[in-house]
Parts: sequence; C-alpha cells; structure tokens
Amino acid sequence: MALIVQKYGGTSVGSVERIAAVADKVKQFAEQGHQLVVVVSAMSGETNRLIELAKGIDPKARGRELDVLLATGEQVTIALLSMALEQRGCAARSYTGAQVRILTDSAYNKARIIDIDRERVRDDLDAGRVVVVAGFQGIDGDGHITTLGRGGSDTTAVALAAALKADECQIYTDVDGVYTTDPRVVADARRLDRITFEEMLEMASLGSKVLQIRSVEFAGKYNVPLRVLSSFKEGPGTLITFEENPMEDALISGIAFSRDEAQLTITGVPDEPGIAYRILGAVADLNIEVDMIVQNVSAEGMTDFTFTVHRNDYDRAMECLQEVVKGLGARELVGNTRIAKISLVGVGMRSHAGIASKMFGVLGQEGINILMISTSEIKVSVVVQEKYLELAVRALHDAFNLAGHPEERTDLPNA
Amino acid sequence: MALIVQKYGGTSVGSVERIAAVADKVKQFAEQGHQLVVVVSAMSGETNRLIELAKGIDPKARGRELDVLLATGEQVTIALLSMALEQRGCAARSYTGAQVRILTDSAYNKARIIDIDRERVRDDLDAGRVVVVAGFQGIDGDGHITTLGRGGSDTTAVALAAALKADECQIYTDVDGVYTTDPRVVADARRLDRITFEEMLEMASLGSKVLQIRSVEFAGKYNVPLRVLSSFKEGPGTLITFEENPMEDALISGIAFSRDEAQLTITGVPDEPGIAYRILGAVADLNIEVDMIVQNVSAEGMTDFTFTVHRNDYDRAMECLQEVVKGLGARELVGNTRIAKISLVGVGMRSHAGIASKMFGVLGQEGINILMISTSEIKVSVVVQEKYLELAVRALHDAFNLAGHPEERTDLPNA
Repeated sequence: MALIVQKYGGTSVGSVERIAAVADKVKQFAEQGHQLVVVVSAMSGETNRLIELAKGIDPKARGRELDVLLATGEQVTIALLSMALEQRGCAARSYTGAQVRILTDSAYNKARIIDIDRERVRDDLDAGRVVVVAGFQGIDGDGHITTLGRGGSDTTAVALAAALKADECQIYTDVDGVYTTDPRVVADARRLDRITFEEMLEMASLGSKVLQIRSVEFAGKYNVPLRVLSSFKEGPGTLITFEENPMEDALISGIAFSRDEAQLTITGVPDEPGIAYRILGAVADLNIEVDMIVQNVSAEGMTDFTFTVHRNDYDRAMECLQEVVKGLGARELVGNTRIAKISLVGVGMRSHAGIASKMFGVLGQEGINILMISTSEIKVSVVVQEKYLELAVRALHDAFNLAGHPEERTDLPNA
Repeated sequence: MALIVQKYGGTSVGSVERIAAVADKVKQFAEQGHQLVVVVSAMSGETNRLIELAKGIDPKARGRELDVLLATGEQVTIALLSMALEQRGCAARSYTGAQVRILTDSAYNKARIIDIDRERVRDDLDAGRVVVVAGFQGIDGDGHITTLGRGGSDTTAVALAAALKADECQIYTDVDGVYTTDPRVVADARRLDRITFEEMLEMASLGSKVLQIRSVEFAGKYNVPLRVLSSFKEGPGTLITFEENPMEDALISGIAFSRDEAQLTITGVPDEPGIAYRILGAVADLNIEVDMIVQNVSAEGMTDFTFTVHRNDYDRAMECLQEVVKGLGARELVGNTRIAKISLVGVGMRSHAGIASKMFGVLGQEGINILMISTSEIKVSVVVQEKYLELAVRALHDAFNLAGHPEERTDLPNA
C-alpha cells in the first residue's frame, strides 16, 4: 500500500465527463489499496472566464480580491470530483486550500507555500477516504485567501507529497511525458523515460509547459519522486530523478521555448554603479519576476539595459519604468512583446564545449537574428523574434539529433 | 453616521455592469459617512449553472460537496464587487462565510446560522472599509462549508445586522417593495409603504418571493428594522415594522401565492394513533420541510393523509414514502406537482369574520375547485390546480379591493 499524490490539470477535468473519467481512474487506484490525495485544477477555461469577469470590472485587476475570485475555480472542481467519487461508492472529501490549511505568505496572485497541516489529511486517509484538494490556492497567516499563480496546482501536489512523505507524486496532464521538445512544433519529438531534476528545472523555467517550475524545485528540494503521465492514455510517462542516465550519452536532453515573455530595453543609461538596482528594484517592488537580463558594455559612458518579464507583467513594468527612466536621465524605454525564447538544456552540456557556438551557427544558417543570449551550466538560451520560433526549434532539434534512435520512436504520440 | 447592512440579490449583481452600478451606489452611501456591510448573492444564473454541473455528475447531488460547489457562486460576486469598490477609491474587503465566521449547524444545503464573529467585521468597519460578505453560506464547527439553502442571502444580511446591531437592514432586489400581490399577475397591484412582521412572515412563507422567510423571522426576533428596496430605481420601498398601521383599516394586506409546492396524499391509512408521526417523521428525517398538512376525518377506520413539500423535495419524499406506505398497510400513495397555493394575508383579519367564506365564494364563482384549505390567525390558504392560479389571484385582488385608492396608485411600476 502506497501513499500517492495525484494531480489532474485543467484539461483532465475540463468537463463533467472528464471529471467522471478521473473519478473512475482514482477509484481504481483506491481499490488497489493505495491511499490517495488528489489535487485538481480549475476546469479548463474556467480561470480565463473568471479573469475576463475581473477585467470587466478592472482591466488591471490583481491583489487580494483577484485571489478570492480565482480560488473559486478549483473549488468547483474539488466538489464535482468528490461527488463523482462518492457516487461510485468511493468515500471522498474535498478541501479548499484554506481548509487543508495550506499556509502561504501574503503575496497575492503569486503566493508561496510555507507550511501544510498534515493532520486533517492524515485523519481522512486513515478513515479510508480519498482526499480531494484544490490546487493553486492557500491561505495566509491572517486568513486571507491566496493563490500560487498560474500552474500552481503542480506545486500544491508536490508540497502535499513532501508534507505527507508520499511514495510518489504523479502529475496527470494532457501529454504523456516530457519530450525533447513540444511535439506540436516538432513532429518527431521524443518522449524521455527519465530526466534529471536539474534539466527539468531548466525545461520548466524555459517555458516547457509540462510542469510548473516551482513544483519541480519543491520536488527536488524535498526529494519527492515525481512522474508526469497522461490522463488520457496509459503509459509510464517520464520520471524525474536525481540520477543522470549513464546509458544515454546525449549532450542535450531537450529544447524548451516560451512565447510568454516580453522584452524591455532602456537605452542611453548613464553607466554608473547602482543602475541595475534602480531599474530592477522598481520592477521587483511590483512583485514582477525578471527573467533574462543583459547589459552591454558601455560606450561613451552610456549603456543599454535589457531584460525580459512575463507578458502579463509587461504593461505594469513599462508603466513603472517611465518614471525610473526619467529619474536616470536615460534616453528612452523600448518594449517588445513579439519575442520568443529558445533554450537547449542538458546535463551533458557541462562536459562538452561548443554547444552554444553550434546553436548560434544553426540559427545563423536559417537567417535568424539573435536578440539576447543567456547561458548557465546546463542550458543556452536565446531570444529571437517570435515569428522565427518554430523554424528555429525544428532546425535545432534536427541539428542536435534529438529524435533519437528509431526503436525509441515507436511510442510517439500522433501529435 | 449609521451602520447599514445592505443586501443585493442575484439580479442586482447579474452582470459586470450591474456590479459596477451597485459599487457606485455603495460608494455614495459610504461617502455620506455611513458604515456599510454589503451582502451579495451569486450572479443570477450562476447557482443554476453550478447545479447543472452537479447534476451532470450526480442527478441527486446534495450534501457536503454540493455546498462546497454552490459556495463558489457568492465568492465570485464578493471578489468582483470589492474590486469595483477599490477601483472607485472606496476601501473594501471581501469575506466568504467561512472567513467572517458565520458559524452554522451541519445541515448541509439547509444550514442554520448559530453565531457570527463580530470582531473581524468591526475591525474593518472601524478602519473605514466597506465589508463585502458572501451571502447564503457559512461554516460549521468542524470547518466544513455549509449553505443556508436558496434565498439564504437575505438571512445572512439580517443575521449580520442583528449581530452588529445595525441601524437598518436594506434588502435590494428587482422589485421596489412589497406589493398587495405579484404585479406580474395583477396589473394594478399596489406597493405597501409598510407591512407588519407577522404579515410579512405569512407573505414570505406563502411564496411571495420578495424576502426569504427565515430572514424575516430573524429580523423580527432580533428587532432589526428591515426595508425592501429596488436596486434599479429610487424610492422608499417597504418598511417591515412591528406597528400595525392604524390609518389603513384594510382587512387583508396582500395575496401571496406559490408554485413551488407539490402535494402528496396517502389514501386508505388505518386511522391509528401515531400515523401522522410515522409519515411525517420519515420525511423530516430527510430534512424535508413539510408545509400544509390535512387529514380528513376517518370513515370505516381509514383516513386520507395529505401534505405538501417543496417541489425540489418531491422526488425524495415520494421515494421514502413508498416504504412507509407499505409498512402502514395503506392503500396508495398519490402525488401531484401541478398545484398552486394562494393565501390571503392580513392582521386585520383577526377582528373580522367571513374572510374565508368570502374567499371560497369568489373562487367558486370562477369555477375553481379547492383541493386543500389551511388557516391561521392572519391568513387563509387554499391549494388549487396550478392552471387556475392567475385567474384566482386576479379575482381575489378585485374582490378584496386591494388596488386601493387612485392617488396611491401613481407610483405603480409598469409591470
């Protein structure tokens, strides 16, 4: 008998029929004698519907009340799934984030989990119930409802798995594992049987939408075995592990990309100490996360400063920087939302030089201009114009031979 | 400076635009220096949408998980209204029933309020905030979400007004007061400036949909001045008061009616002591409320037993009585959902005989057969076939001269 935390995303619970199918699946596991905690997202489309309502009231809606609003999405799903389980004779009980008590900090819209009350869940598990928990949400120390930000349901699942010392945390999604890149863009993308936490972290942070990055961090930190599987077809999925796979001597494991970012550049910044702090500090004060940062060497005492933020934060970042630019005496503030970020990821990269230069060469051959470059020990990222995204990813997937051995390709999805 | 509890129903908050209009109205009151607690319902249509989802999972959905589901409806509204207030520069904070802490018993779907935590709301009011509270919901002693049943938002408002010792509880709705009868049925129905609690209780319990009965009971019990007004047009509404109006010497104040009931008859019941208990006890065990009860005198040791329940409870009541009927050795169980109840209500009735006989005479003249009769000190109720409802109400409104004096009719709505 194992204790398993399962998480079903928005597409997996996107309709009454799909919720019923998830209930069938959960019941099977329960009948095998496993103790189950099931974390669910809002039904697909629901969060967007709620955001549209909020925008109808206030186009810049955020903060406390947005979380009160969005938290209803998962609450609907936990109720429906618990009903479906009960109807199947499988004892179940739903909990909101506040009820479980998933204690978070007070950073509305982007809260972080501080602690989880194990007792309540344990009591229900010991009483033979499936515990159905609303993902993505929690409660702060003063009893205010918080949300973890988009994709936060994965984090909820992993945090619960860590708190309960679960045997495995299974993330059910609409893909059957982690691929070398998005199969919708590259037809012969290959499912990976396993991937290291480090690689997965880079993949996730770089826009591979399979798992939300904070959930991978959490899983790595608390040593939670994490598996990505499909809600819709059988299969082993991809196991995220600490061990590097000695059999596959691949230089890179995958290509991640993202259309979610926007670029902001301040030109003609006087090159003085503290400039970066004044610029990024203002952005950080708004709780906006900055991703890539590039500052060119200065010419004639002036420099250009470029960074990227999530597109959702672009308007706010631009607004707050108008003031900063004036204060700095910089030339101008230029923004670009039509960009894409592409990254090669692989632990094999550590011991091999030349990955970056080969990447730049491939892009150059395709006539694709590189707007920004950033590297880490196991990844190389570039920003290009959004229109080149698919072309660039396909060319790189080919050039680095990621489609792999033919016999490994028999289980490719028809994507 | 007064402390006012306002309640806006589903139609009043039925769209983003209407929520914005409510925010404008609330802001005006706040700027006049009043302390405001605003209770809201789910946006119109939302509760039905949620119920449809639940029925998609389980056609007989009820109990704990239904409340978890339905409670999201009001939570959406409190978030949107608070956003709209904040956007207008009017400090506001939303609370779910669980957050305020509206403590209820554990009768899911039909819970009753036991206590309300005043401190949290008081702190916010003292800090100059409008407090926006989700109606219709609470939390039980074990932290499970409960709902008060349909229309329960009125009860939330009155209970809050009582707990906070508010100066007035204003129920904003889509009608501009309490009428002698439904203006949609009788064109010259007249708005009453005031009505006694007793009359209002009978009107509410008899299907006049302006106020939910439990809210009137609460208001009467805790002496909360209660006023019904329109969200959409200016006007004094109707004040619900303890004083009878000595100026209007009307015999009856209004005609209430309801299509929400269904009739169940058990025929051929052996006429023994304890029969009524065995029948109604089984129904009460399911938490089904019984309204009218009629037992005819027995003939040959057998009697017929008839009672009415809410149509929503009809299927469950029929189901549970199948067993009871067998156990009693009764002849058969007959149900009828095509009925309507019509009631004359008025404190003036106490001192005047002949109201009931005049009522039966009017119905007889119209050829309307009476299926059940029930009377109390200030009302006479009859059950008729549903198809006769409008005809009966119009005939009675005329016969009892309820349209009133011409000069009082200038403010009639164009209904």
